[in-house]
Formats: sequence, C-alpha cells, structure tokens
Amino acid sequence: MGSWHEQRLRVRFEETDSMGVVYYAKYFVWFEVGRVNLLRDIGIPPSSWGKMGIHIPVVQAHSDYEASARFDDEILVLTRVASVGRSSIRFENEVYRLPEKVRLSTGHTVHALTGEDGRSFPFPPDLKEKLTSS
Amino acid sequence: MGSWHEQRLRVRFEETDSMGVVYYAKYFVWFEVGRVNLLRDIGIPPSSWGKMGIHIPVVQAHSDYEASARFDDEILVLTRVASVGRSSIRFENEVYRLPEKVRLSTGHTVHALTGEDGRSFPFPPDLKEKLTSS
Amino acid sequence: MGSWHEQRLRVRFEETDSMGVVYYAKYFVWFEVGRVNLLRDIGIPPSSWGKMGIHIPVVQAHSDYEASARFDDEILVLTRVASVGRSSIRFENEVYRLPEKVRLSTGHTVHALTGEDGRSFPFPPDLKEKLTSS
Amino acid sequence: MGSWHEQRLRVRFEETDSMGVVYYAKYFVWFEVGRVNLLRDIGIPPSSWGKMGIHIPVVQAHSDYEASARFDDEILVLTRVASVGRSSIRFENEVYRLPEKVRLSTGHTVHALTGEDGRSFPFPPDLKEKLTSS
Repeated sequence: MGSWHEQRLRVRFEETDSMGVVYYAKYFVWFEVGRVNLLRDIGIPPSSWGKMGIHIPVVQAHSDYEASARFDDEILVLTRVASVGRSSIRFENEVYRLPEKVRLSTGHTVHALTGEDGRSFPFPPDLKEKLTSS
Repeated sequence: MGSWHEQRLRVRFEETDSMGVVYYAKYFVWFEVGRVNLLRDIGIPPSSWGKMGIHIPVVQAHSDYEASARFDDEILVLTRVASVGRSSIRFENEVYRLPEKVRLSTGHTVHALTGEDGRSFPFPPDLKEKLTSS
Repeated sequence: MGSWHEQRLRVRFEETDSMGVVYYAKYFVWFEVGRVNLLRDIGIPPSSWGKMGIHIPVVQAHSDYEASARFDDEILVLTRVASVGRSSIRFENEVYRLPEKVRLSTGHTVHALTGEDGRSFPFPPDLKEKLTSS
Repeated sequence: MGSWHEQRLRVRFEETDSMGVVYYAKYFVWFEVGRVNLLRDIGIPPSSWGKMGIHIPVVQAHSDYEASARFDDEILVLTRVASVGRSSIRFENEVYRLPEKVRLSTGHTVHALTGEDGRSFPFPPDLKEKLTSS
C-alpha cells in the first residue's frame, strides 16, 4: 500500500450543478487529477507513459458520497496506490472540503495495463517497484 | 425490479479524450440522462420532483468498463429501478455501442431521498408505487 | 449561405451550474453538436473527414447570450454554413428554448482546414461544393 | 484598464479531445477560473457577491485560437478588467502554454450586473472603484 499523495484544488463554477453543489461525475475528474499528481510525484509523469508505449485505461470506477461542496470551496484530494497486480493497478481516493476537512467522498479506480495495441501487458519490474513503493 | 428503459444518444466530440475514446467520467453523465428519461417515462419528470420538494442526491456511483466508444458512435443507455428502500433508491445502467450492441459499461447509482432541508425523507406511497412498478 | 439545419436536445443536469441555468461554455458544445449534425445531413459525417485526412480546428468562437435555459428544458440548435473560404469555413448558430422558441444565443465559429500535419489546406472542390450548397 | 492577473493550471485529461488537444469550449472554463482569481485578488471573492445580492451573468463570450495545448501541459491564464460600464463589465483574457509562453488564445467576456431578480443593476460605487483600479 502506497502513501497518500495530496492535491489541492478550488471548485470551479463549471463543476457545480443547479442543486448548488459539485456534480457527482466531477469527483472522477478530481480522482484523475490526484492520480496524475501521484504519478508525477514518483517520477512517472504522463509523458513518460507515452514514451514507454503503456496505457492504463480505467476498468472500474467507484465513489461513495458523504457530503457536498460548493463553488469556490477549497478541496483536498488524497490518492494512493492500493495494490499493483500483474497487469492491473488500483488507486484509492479520499476527497475533503477545507479548512474543516469534512470528508466528501471515498472512492477508487482500477486500471488495466495495456500496450499501444490495447492488449494486456505485464508491468515492467522497475515501474512496478516505483508504484509499489509510492 | 423495474423494466429497462432505453435512451439513445450520440457521442459528442467534447466527451472524448486524447486516448481517442469517451472519457470515463462521462458515463455517469449518460447514467443521469438515462435516469431522467426513465423518470419522465413513468410520469415523474424532474419538474415534478421540485414541486414535491423532494431531491434524490447520489450517495454511491459505480461503473465497470468493458469496451470503449469513439466520437459520433451511436450509444444505447439502459436504465432500470433495481430497488426502492424506505428513503433510498438504486438505479442500474447498461451502456451499449450500436449497431453491434457491444456492451461498454454496467453500473449503478444509489440515491438518498431528501427534503429541501437535506434531511432524509421516506418515499410518499404513490411515488414509491410508481417507481416499484416502473 | 447555406440553409439552417435543426438539432433538438434536452438540457442535461451536468450542463447546469449553481445559478440554476446552463453554464455559458456549454453552448459551444451545442454549437458543435449542431455542426456535426449539419455535416452528417449533407453527406460528410465525421468519419469521412478522417478518411480524407482533413481536420477543421476552431480558430474563433463567439456567443451572445440573450436568455437562459434550465435543467430538462427542450432546446433547438440551428446551424448553417455562413461562408466557405479557400481554406476556412464559418458556421453560424442560433439556440432556442422550446416550446416558446425564446432565443437564448446567437453565435458563430470559424475553422481552418488543415491536413494531418496541421498545415493549412485548400478545400477539395467537391467538399466545397457540398458545403456551399448546404 | 486593470492590470493582468495571473493564474496557472495544468491541462486535465478530461479537458482534452480525440484530436489530442484541449477542447475549444474548455478555454471559457479557464477564462472563468481567471476571472474568479482576479476577483479574489482584489477583495471581492464569489462569496461576497452572493452577500451583496449581485450576479454577473455572461452576455458575450469570444475566443480566438492561435495554438493548442495537450494533456498535462502547464498553462498560464491572464485576466484583466478591460472596462466597467454603468451596469456591465468586460474582462479580457490571454492564455499561454508554459514554459515557452506560446500564446494559445486571446478572448474576452462581457457581463451584465443584475440583482437577485435578474434585473439590470448599476454598480455600487465602491465595487466599481475596486474593479476599475484592479
């Protein structure tokens, strides 16, 4: 299990809906922002994946919602690597509203590892090591 | 368990990402289009919920992805009421790419029933009846 | 000047913001839906552009807003080819709320014609003819 | 004419399209992020507008596109108050890709000043002063 990586962001007006809160699907965009930030933190930014010819399409996405956020709220997105399989990876996320640190959502995404051709692909050892020790 | 309601739509260019396929979070937007269509079909369109002072915020969202869709593909979204609790409801969705009817995603959303004040609210009997026999 | 092509759509919950109306940038998504529909109507759907190795990136986008739309409103998007240059094209749009046909927006987009390499490209005569007589 | 206010952001995967670049309508979301940042900088954050019972709906939006951005690119959004009328305001934006500072877009938005009832509203003197000297 990797450690939590932190990403802060502000709720954009575009992310709210006519209930006055952040639209539920936007949390998955934030999960992605968190994942990308984690990968950059541990030295495998998006650009490097392309060079390796590796993709990690989402095969499962899940979110439980506990509270809501409004326009211009400050948000903390936590992301960690929960497990790394032969050719899959699971990230976990928690989303909080600051400054009170009210938890808004817990969720996860599961990704397959594929090559340019879309076929399943075992993790190269060095990549797996970086992710496992993240 | 209600019956499947059908909604067709076209993949918008805005819904695609730089992998050339529909971005994973957009499926939750399609689930919502499917839910709203189902509710309209059974005589409780969005406008009527506002008049009743009832909201159904999402408390859980889940999607498993099996295949992908591209710009301008024709999509079939199936939605049904899976169960209705005292003050919660679960919708299930399946998303297909036409004309081959390749399944792209199965998923579900769980919603709480709340009043204007955000507090949990038992389903009025007539509303529950409409949803259960949907 | 081509004729108006009609596209109907429903306001999605995701398209609204916490002012209770459709977020201003979403109109440009609707303009795109209208353009794609027009191109399909006149026999040059998106798939055929790819086959021809031609792209039409947006170089200018403009919208004037006159009124607003709410969740689940029925919308009429009108699109026409306003002019076709040597290697550019201008589409015009009008957006209405039905059934009253209240005008919400008038706007336009200008597109360059480019090849796969991103370089400017004169319209092939048959494509120009189809667009001019649209 | 106010001074330029700076906002940096990263291109989100969700903001890209299947041409591999940022979708044109997303620039208007970035313009909004820039406006909100400017207003916070000069002491009138979004929360204060609500308390004053003032809204500034967009009545015109315009963007000219000069180059494109890709996933994970670092972006600089510049925003300034171009003019303040009796009950309207015009913001100007420029968007750059870093680190080369390639200009991607120049644009503007015009907003009406309205009260809770949607009616036009003259700027309170202190608010006008803050905006003019921004």
